Amino acid sequence: MTSILQTPAHPVSDALLHRAKQVIPNGMYGHQIATGLWPGAPQFVSRTSGSRIWDADGHEYIDLLCSWGPIIHGYQHPLIEEAVNRQRLISDTANGPSEHMVTLAEKLVDVVEHADWAMFAKNGSDVTTLCLTIARAHTGKATILVEEGTYHGALPWCNPDKTGVLPSDRAGLAYYTYNDLASVEKLIIEHEGDLAGIIVAPFRHDPAGSDLELVDPEFAQGLRRICDENGAVLILDEVRTGLRMSFGGSWEQYGVRPDLSSWSKAIGNGYPIAAVMGAEALREAAGSFFVTGTFWFSAVPMVAALTSLALLDECDGVAHMYARGQQLVSGLAAQAASHALPITITGPAPMPYMSFAGETDHQFTLAWTAECAARGVFIHPKHNWFMSTALTEADVDTVLSVTDEAFGEVAKRFF
Amino acid sequence: MTSILQTPAHPVSDALLHRAKQVIPNGMYGHQIATGLWPGAPQFVSRTSGSRIWDADGHEYIDLLCSWGPIIHGYQHPLIEEAVNRQRLISDTANGPSEHMVTLAEKLVDVVEHADWAMFAKNGSDVTTLCLTIARAHTGKATILVEEGTYHGALPWCNPDKTGVLPSDRAGLAYYTYNDLASVEKLIIEHEGDLAGIIVAPFRHDPAGSDLELVDPEFAQGLRRICDENGAVLILDEVRTGLRMSFGGSWEQYGVRPDLSSWSKAIGNGYPIAAVMGAEALREAAGSFFVTGTFWFSAVPMVAALTSLALLDECDGVAHMYARGQQLVSGLAAQAASHALPITITGPAPMPYMSFAGETDHQFTLAWTAECAARGVFIHPKHNWFMSTALTEADVDTVLSVTDEAFGEVAKRFF
Repeated sequence: MTSILQTPAHPVSDALLHRAKQVIPNGMYGHQIATGLWPGAPQFVSRTSGSRIWDADGHEYIDLLCSWGPIIHGYQHPLIEEAVNRQRLISDTANGPSEHMVTLAEKLVDVVEHADWAMFAKNGSDVTTLCLTIARAHTGKATILVEEGTYHGALPWCNPDKTGVLPSDRAGLAYYTYNDLASVEKLIIEHEGDLAGIIVAPFRHDPAGSDLELVDPEFAQGLRRICDENGAVLILDEVRTGLRMSFGGSWEQYGVRPDLSSWSKAIGNGYPIAAVMGAEALREAAGSFFVTGTFWFSAVPMVAALTSLALLDECDGVAHMYARGQQLVSGLAAQAASHALPITITGPAPMPYMSFAGETDHQFTLAWTAECAARGVFIHPKHNWFMSTALTEADVDTVLSVTDEAFGEVAKRFF
Repeated sequence: MTSILQTPAHPVSDALLHRAKQVIPNGMYGHQIATGLWPGAPQFVSRTSGSRIWDADGHEYIDLLCSWGPIIHGYQHPLIEEAVNRQRLISDTANGPSEHMVTLAEKLVDVVEHADWAMFAKNGSDVTTLCLTIARAHTGKATILVEEGTYHGALPWCNPDKTGVLPSDRAGLAYYTYNDLASVEKLIIEHEGDLAGIIVAPFRHDPAGSDLELVDPEFAQGLRRICDENGAVLILDEVRTGLRMSFGGSWEQYGVRPDLSSWSKAIGNGYPIAAVMGAEALREAAGSFFVTGTFWFSAVPMVAALTSLALLDECDGVAHMYARGQQLVSGLAAQAASHALPITITGPAPMPYMSFAGETDHQFTLAWTAECAARGVFIHPKHNWFMSTALTEADVDTVLSVTDEAFGEVAKRFF
């Protein structure tokens, strides 16, 4: 029990949570709820800067979560904030878009290899949903194939939680298994003549602390072939991966280009924006119906995105994040070996995840992340982590000095 | 044709639109598309300030649209911007919410009479959808009654455009007619035993340039009674009306409190935020499932909302907007009478709409708004307008001097 006692107290966070429970169901909800973390994990953040966050009680952490993905250049990157500050005084939410919407669409079309056009929204769920609607409008067909157990958002058609959801909300969907082309081909036969498209994540990232699984290139190529043979739309969901796993498209490395792709998290370095990107053949369908949102055309997140994209381009940000991720996972693997701990590291280097073999309910991973947090490193025990261009080699060295101590504690307590 | 020639040229906007057409389907989409406005209406906004906007070519307008609702204190209100600027340097999108999420929930629970708790999101569509899910989770029933032809957002279940939408996306819905309690009672019988709830807007605001229709208090009270008798959830969609028609709830004046309400546009004076507000009885259902969004917990829009709510409270903003709206519609009515023009003014004073009797396809209204725009007043010809606390009595006088000339032009050309 030593380690639990080492976890710093969080009286301010606890008091806030007490107030929150009066006016918010359960005090908090969604992916940022802290109850699934280690005991005493702080619920609230009071300050962010670069690669650091501070909880409501003022404890500082090196952050390996990056707000679940959006923060790709570190919090409050000076150049992005300078651009945001300039734009917010000129215009943000208005009766029409600013010129920056056009420039951002041009830039994204330039960056994203498969894409000839862009549409903007706010949430990841907005754009995964929009991809389904465009695919159905384009093909005149209904069925979309979806990976069983994946995460494409939290609307009734895709929420992993089916509470309050009707079977009819998912009537147009059929479920395949990731990296199992036979499971897809079986559905193709079952839904022959009614196939609108296939939606797939660049790598397998199911919710609730599953290990990650990279795509088998033959699976990716097989989906492309199947879509081509059946006149179906291939939708790549880049909401989580986009601009971190690759600058131009996560499946470019396998020679696979989707027809549509959905993007959000990392586009604007924390400013809220999402995008559908599409190939020329889908343009007409994408423009054939009304879709909108009150804040979809606001200028500030678009200016943040333009500055963030320029920075990524100039500093070869993706290579930086691969290097830091590689430094981290190599270090973790060596440390675990030295402690004779059975860990599993999965996922691409800029978005890795680590768990302990043989654990049920993440108890070793939870204990390990608790030890890390007590020493000033914020690592999520049940979700892939995110590198950023703000994370320096020295930061990762500091993280590794903490993770080594945390491994020591876990080895003492559990192995 | 004189009037068309008076419309200022927009070479910068035209050039932007030409570029936009390469990289955005149709160059633009959604509610902010300018093609439904007068010929040559500007598509892009270059600057906003207080009650004014400037198009991409630098033409200045007094703005009666307020970005379709979000701008309730005028663009870039100094106190809101000061709070935003302070917060953005501390934290915005992070691993967890800030303390401001709790304070905002407390404030909204204090302001919104029917509500005991709040949940936050980004889009209006997020929160109308969430209300349906909560109602279904609470009752274990499927059917939600919806007004035929209303606007509750642009997701497949509610988008007025059915392109790419499957019949199954709306399988749980049944459609009544606004202010027609018999049409509701008929559905109650048809769906007996399967009724989850009724969603309704505080006044009838169907899309595409329909005149507005205030609620018949007996209809509002009848919906409350029907929900009580059938164990169904009454959902009031305040996305458009919230904080402008009333500070505490738009149906408080009729003695009707909903169980759930959806809010968005005007909460944060243009900063993106949405909220579900609920009564105690719905708290458990609201907390019984996972729902989330990447940017739902960001601090900056919550700080904007807190400042905006405090301003509304201190300056009795709703009364101000009623006064300015009343000044405007009284003036318009008098002017139209003096020109012997047959106009129809509908809606509550802070959100009025005007059309010409006997027109088809809005041709007189379009011509009138074009004349207004050419003289520096931005009025939407097919959507209700929005007052703000930034609009002064002198502003409305200026608007009225313009509208009078515009009536004169319309009278000359068409009557």
